[in-house]
Amino acid sequence: MKRVLSSAMAAMHTERANPQDTAAPARPRIDRRSLLAAGAALAAGAGAATVLTREDRPGPAAAPPPPGPVPFHGARQSGVLHRQLPATRLLALDLPAATDRAALRTLLAAASDVLARAADGGLADPRLTGAPPATSLAAIGPALAARLHLPAPAALAELPAFPGDRLDPARSGGDLLLQVSAEQPWTTGILTEHLLAAATAAGATLRWHQAGFLPPAPDGQTPRNLFGFKDGTANPDPADPALWQQDGTVLVYRRIRMDTAAFAALPADGRDLATGRRADTGAPLTGTAEHDDPDIYAKHPDGSYVIPATAHVRLSSPRLDGGARMLRRGWSYDDTPTDRGLLFLAFMPDPALFTRVQTRLAERDALTPFLTHTASAVGWVLPGAREGGALGEGL
Amino acid sequence: MKRVLSSAMAAMHTERANPQDTAAPARPRIDRRSLLAAGAALAAGAGAATVLTREDRPGPAAAPPPPGPVPFHGARQSGVLHRQLPATRLLALDLPAATDRAALRTLLAAASDVLARAADGGLADPRLTGAPPATSLAAIGPALAARLHLPAPAALAELPAFPGDRLDPARSGGDLLLQVSAEQPWTTGILTEHLLAAATAAGATLRWHQAGFLPPAPDGQTPRNLFGFKDGTANPDPADPALWQQDGTVLVYRRIRMDTAAFAALPADGRDLATGRRADTGAPLTGTAEHDDPDIYAKHPDGSYVIPATAHVRLSSPRLDGGARMLRRGWSYDDTPTDRGLLFLAFMPDPALFTRVQTRLAERDALTPFLTHTASAVGWVLPGAREGGALGEGL
Repeated sequence: MKRVLSSAMAAMHTERANPQDTAAPARPRIDRRSLLAAGAALAAGAGAATVLTREDRPGPAAAPPPPGPVPFHGARQSGVLHRQLPATRLLALDLPAATDRAALRTLLAAASDVLARAADGGLADPRLTGAPPATSLAAIGPALAARLHLPAPAALAELPAFPGDRLDPARSGGDLLLQVSAEQPWTTGILTEHLLAAATAAGATLRWHQAGFLPPAPDGQTPRNLFGFKDGTANPDPADPALWQQDGTVLVYRRIRMDTAAFAALPADGRDLATGRRADTGAPLTGTAEHDDPDIYAKHPDGSYVIPATAHVRLSSPRLDGGARMLRRGWSYDDTPTDRGLLFLAFMPDPALFTRVQTRLAERDALTPFLTHTASAVGWVLPGAREGGALGEGL
Repeated sequence: MKRVLSSAMAAMHTERANPQDTAAPARPRIDRRSLLAAGAALAAGAGAATVLTREDRPGPAAAPPPPGPVPFHGARQSGVLHRQLPATRLLALDLPAATDRAALRTLLAAASDVLARAADGGLADPRLTGAPPATSLAAIGPALAARLHLPAPAALAELPAFPGDRLDPARSGGDLLLQVSAEQPWTTGILTEHLLAAATAAGATLRWHQAGFLPPAPDGQTPRNLFGFKDGTANPDPADPALWQQDGTVLVYRRIRMDTAAFAALPADGRDLATGRRADTGAPLTGTAEHDDPDIYAKHPDGSYVIPATAHVRLSSPRLDGGARMLRRGWSYDDTPTDRGLLFLAFMPDPALFTRVQTRLAERDALTPFLTHTASAVGWVLPGAREGGALGEGL
C-alpha cells in the first residue's frame, strides 16, 4: 500500500524529473485536489482498515477545532482529537502484580468517572466552579497489556535504547498513563487530585507525574518551544485515519531536556540551519511560509543542501519514512532552571515509526547536542468510551 | 500612636459597651466616614512619617489597579504595588562571601536591566514577542544586609523557629530574592532564564527557585487557595503608608504545604469553622458578604463564639495586633501531588508582626494540622528604581 501511494506521489512530482538533481531552492508545486483525489481513490480501493500515508502536505494544516464543549464520550479520546489546551498534567500509575482485567476495568471506570465530569463540568468540587472543560487521555503500558493479554496493537512495545538517552526509570514507563489538559494549571492540579484519589482507591500507585504548559499563541497558530521555534508544524489532522487503529492509537512520550542557553548562544542563522526552519516564521529554509513543504532535495548553486544534512526537519521528514506521519503534541515543561524542555507526545499506530525517526535524530540531528532525553513511555491509547460508558469497559 | 488610634477605635464601638459580652452574632456598626475622619485627624496630628494602623476595615478592599502598563521605575516596586498576576516565579540567589556594595550594585543593575525590559516589552527575545508586561520584586536577605551594613530596616531579621516548622534550608533564605509575575508561566520561565544569566554573570549562584500560580478568578475577586477558600480578603491597599518605610518594606515568604485530601475529608461546616469564613462566599461566620468585618467577639446564645477560638480568621485578626496589618499575597504551588499548597508572601514594615501572628497560628489554629511550613525567607524590599535608574543604586 505504501508503495502504491508513494508511486502516486512520485507521479505528482513530474515537474521535477529527478528530485535529487534540483539545483536551487524550489517549492514543490503539488495540486492539492489531485493529491486528495488520489488519496481518496487509494483509500477506497484498499478498504477502510488501510493505513493511508501521505508523503506531502501542500497546504496549511487543518484549522484546529474551535474552543467549546469537549465531549468525553466518543469513538476516540479527546486528548488526541481535541486541540491542545495550554496546561497539561501527565500521571503514570502502576498496578499491583495481581491485577486482573476486572480490576483494570474497575480502575478505568473510576478514572472515566472523573474524566467525564472534568469534561462536562459535573465534578462536585467548588474549586472547579466555572472552570472550562478538560480534555483527557488514558493509555495502557506495554507490560500490563502483555500481562493481561489485552487486545492492544501488536506493535505496542517499549522503545529501544537510543544513543545519548539518559532515562530516569522513576520518570519513565508505567502501567496506566493518564493525561488531563485544561486552560489553567489550577484545573489540571485539582483534577490530578481527584484522579489520584480514585486511582489509589482502586489499588493503583503513582509512578510519576509531570506538568507542562504551552506558550501563549493565538488560536490555530503553532506553539513555540523553549528554543523559540514553532513545534508541531505539518502535523496531520487528528482525524486522519492513518493515525488510528480501531479507534485506538499508540502514544510515545519523551521528556526532553533542552539546553536553551547553549542553543541561544548559537548565531541566529546557526539556529535556523540546525532546525531547517526559520525561527521567526517557522518557514522551512526552502520556503517562505510556515506551512510550505520543506524541500529536502533543494540545493544551493555550490551543491550543498539548502536544508543541511543534519537539519532536524530533514532527519524527521516523513519522506524518509515512506510518508508515514505521527501526530506530534508538545508541551513545554520548566521544573527547575536547569531542567526545562519539551514534553514530546506523539500518536501513531506503530511506535516503530518513532524509533526510525529518533534513530536518525540521535545519530545526526544538529539539535541533538542541545537535547537530553530524560524519560520515556509508550502506551496504547484506548478507544473512546461509548455514551454513558467507561474507557476500557470492553476489555 | 497605636494606643491613640486604638482609643479612637474603641470610642467608635460605643454601641457595644463591652465587646466581650456581645451575646449574639452581630456585625459591628461602624460609620465609615467617622473612621476615615478619625484616621485622617490622627495622621495629620502625628505627622507624615507616622505608621497609621487601622483596626477595622468597614468597607470592601480597594479595587485592584486595572490591567495595563506596569512601570518598572517608580518610588515603590511593582511586585508589591501592582495587582497579582497569575503566574509567578521566585528566585533566591546567594552572593560570594567577598561581595561588597559595589558588586551588589552591579548585580542589582544587571537584574534591573532585565526587569525593566520585562515590564516594557523591550527584552530582545523573540520568545517573548507580544508577552504582556511582568511585575517584579527584589529584596535583600538579612545576612547580606548585615554583612554590608546596608540601610535596611532595623527590624530586618530571619524569623524565629515556630512549632511545627519543617523548613528545608535548601528552599529557604538567600541573599537576594527576586520575583517575577506575569500572565503566563511561559513568560516567567523565560524571564527566569534571563535573570539567572545576568545574575550568574555577576557572580551570584542560584539557591532555590519556586513557581506558583493563581486560580482563575474574575478581575478584582479574591483568589482561592487549594483548600477552596478565598485567600487575601481584607488586605490593606498596597499604597497604604502603614506598609512602607521610606518606600521600602519587608517581605516574609513561607512555603506552606497543604494536605488538601485531609482537609476535604472534613464536613463542609467543619471546614468553615476551622477557617472562620464560609468557603462559598468568603464571608466571615458573623457576616453575609466577603468584605464584612469578622466580629471575633460575637457569641451564640449558648455563650460560645460564632468564630471559634481556634478559627484561622480569629487568630490572624488584626484586632489582636493593635490593628497592624500585613499585605498578604498568596500563590498556589503544585510541585508534586504530595507537595502542593500555598506560597505565602506578605509585606509589612516589621516582620515581628508576622512572628506574632504565626506564633498564635502555630499553637492554636484549627488549620494547623493540615499545614506544614517547609520553607521560609525574609527580605528587605528595596525602594523602587528612579526613572532611568536601577534598583539599589543608592546603596
